[in-house]
Amino acid sequence: MAFRYGVIGTGALGGFYGGMLARAGREVHFLLRSDYDHVRRLGLRVDSVLGDFHLDRVRAYPETGLMPECDILLVCLKTTSNPLLPELLRPLLGAGGVVLLLQNGLEVEEDLQDRLPAAAIAGGLAFVCCHKVGPGHVRHLDYGALTLGAHGRTDPEIVRLVAADFRAAGVQAECTPDLAAARWRKLVWNVPFNGLTVVMDTTTDRLVRHEASRRLVREIMLEVIHGAGRCGAPLPEALADEMIEQTLRMTPYAPSMKLDYDHGRPMEIETIYSRPVQAAARSGLDLPRISSLEWQLRFLQDFRGDRGLPGGESTPGIPEPRVET
Amino acid sequence: MAFRYGVIGTGALGGFYGGMLARAGREVHFLLRSDYDHVRRLGLRVDSVLGDFHLDRVRAYPETGLMPECDILLVCLKTTSNPLLPELLRPLLGAGGVVLLLQNGLEVEEDLQDRLPAAAIAGGLAFVCCHKVGPGHVRHLDYGALTLGAHGRTDPEIVRLVAADFRAAGVQAECTPDLAAARWRKLVWNVPFNGLTVVMDTTTDRLVRHEASRRLVREIMLEVIHGAGRCGAPLPEALADEMIEQTLRMTPYAPSMKLDYDHGRPMEIETIYSRPVQAAARSGLDLPRISSLEWQLRFLQDFRGDRGLPGGESTPGIPEPRVET
Repeated sequence: MAFRYGVIGTGALGGFYGGMLARAGREVHFLLRSDYDHVRRLGLRVDSVLGDFHLDRVRAYPETGLMPECDILLVCLKTTSNPLLPELLRPLLGAGGVVLLLQNGLEVEEDLQDRLPAAAIAGGLAFVCCHKVGPGHVRHLDYGALTLGAHGRTDPEIVRLVAADFRAAGVQAECTPDLAAARWRKLVWNVPFNGLTVVMDTTTDRLVRHEASRRLVREIMLEVIHGAGRCGAPLPEALADEMIEQTLRMTPYAPSMKLDYDHGRPMEIETIYSRPVQAAARSGLDLPRISSLEWQLRFLQDFRGDRGLPGGESTPGIPEPRVET
Repeated sequence: MAFRYGVIGTGALGGFYGGMLARAGREVHFLLRSDYDHVRRLGLRVDSVLGDFHLDRVRAYPETGLMPECDILLVCLKTTSNPLLPELLRPLLGAGGVVLLLQNGLEVEEDLQDRLPAAAIAGGLAFVCCHKVGPGHVRHLDYGALTLGAHGRTDPEIVRLVAADFRAAGVQAECTPDLAAARWRKLVWNVPFNGLTVVMDTTTDRLVRHEASRRLVREIMLEVIHGAGRCGAPLPEALADEMIEQTLRMTPYAPSMKLDYDHGRPMEIETIYSRPVQAAARSGLDLPRISSLEWQLRFLQDFRGDRGLPGGESTPGIPEPRVET
């Protein structure tokens, strides 16, 4: 029997992965907010390196209370929205569907399980390069692989079937028995590049091409690797140089955190920075370069107005700075 | 017998301190570069919280070869010009005058001594808030104290007499028997605030008022203090909170490094960041937060064009960044 899918949050990620499943004939129900009317009337457009497509009739909903029960709920929201998740999901959890958190960062499954103890939860990581270019319009530029894993008491067989559905829809998908380790592994890339592109106002290629920032990227990666090892997810140190080599071969990237910052949206500081720092600290390991970056981001989150960007605090009435020699 | 002074580098610092000595009747010879013609014709203007003054006739020189021998050579250049110092000073060192480096950072006296082994060298730290507002025109906004000390075989008595000259000219000046310790102490303030105002594009008041950046400032200060202790200059940890309290009471400041960055001038990364990191590393202590900041600054030094600032590399032909989710 085929799974019925719900996509919670139809942005770039939800539009792409949900769209791929729907194109392949799966039954997919999409939760939308600002794009609801547009998608309801005109459908969903995905320009993808795997082939462009358009879904004319989309099962679109403006709130979860109107959605049918689903077997698999793909949560494609940024983790900054996670405080809203229990309320969003509650109407959908009656029939015992599995919540699959397609999100970055650490401990997102644990958090949700704490707030919804009876829920069956799984998680996943998306290695994909896509963004929204307009209402109901997603551009998929590169990559696309998923790594999925069960959390807690969730049956891993269900996750394997979801991965098979994705593969049948043309998406690379694999399962991991250790979701936490997969999350740490992805952080090795995300922690340096997400934060440093924001703080230095630059792109990934610049960071790996300049000697000083490449050293910084590498040392931050090693801190993530050491943190992972201390928290029971051993990763080889050689992963740092491998990822730097990969990034040297990539076209210039602006990670999602950089786009969030530039567009005045909250950044995923908590799950990508604070959680790894706190997890390592609980195991007695200090991650000073990562916590420095975390604090820089927390400052910039609140003072982005200083750079003439939307959101954050503006600077009226601040006296002209004085000069210290 | 009164000292004859030479001021090597008549910017804000040289204009203010040299100007104060000249106003008090000392014989002061000023080396100028871009402002030479202006000052030669129209003199030097100092708008100071200690009282405005104008020096109508200034002993101005466009190069050191034209200056007379001086007893005390006050070097008021940024340390980024120090590679030029031996050549600049050589014509003036015949009579055995003392070179007094009024500069920030670590090991500046050692460096110069290596390159001019016969020179008598002293050093000093200026706690002053002044900047240049135009050709031959300096504005002194606040503070002004000097801490002076002999280096190597230089007679401390000479430094005491220089301090007395400054005091007689209305400048607070004291001597220290341990110049290196005084340099470390000043770094406790300079290392966090110089670098973070550049990287975060902000002012000192913001940094100490926001919780996350204040924690970062404090941890960086503690790294400097630990580095100092390891290098034989013990400082109390309580100094960090004292300096943060002081900075909370200050009006908003843009440290000199921030002005250098904003105006496309090289930053004093080497003497303020690399030297302390290297000195601590030689003693077996890692300073990860400071070296992270050092690498961020080295990147920004070369890529300042990205922020639309003068100097640095511009960004023509860079493809539009792609988006990672």
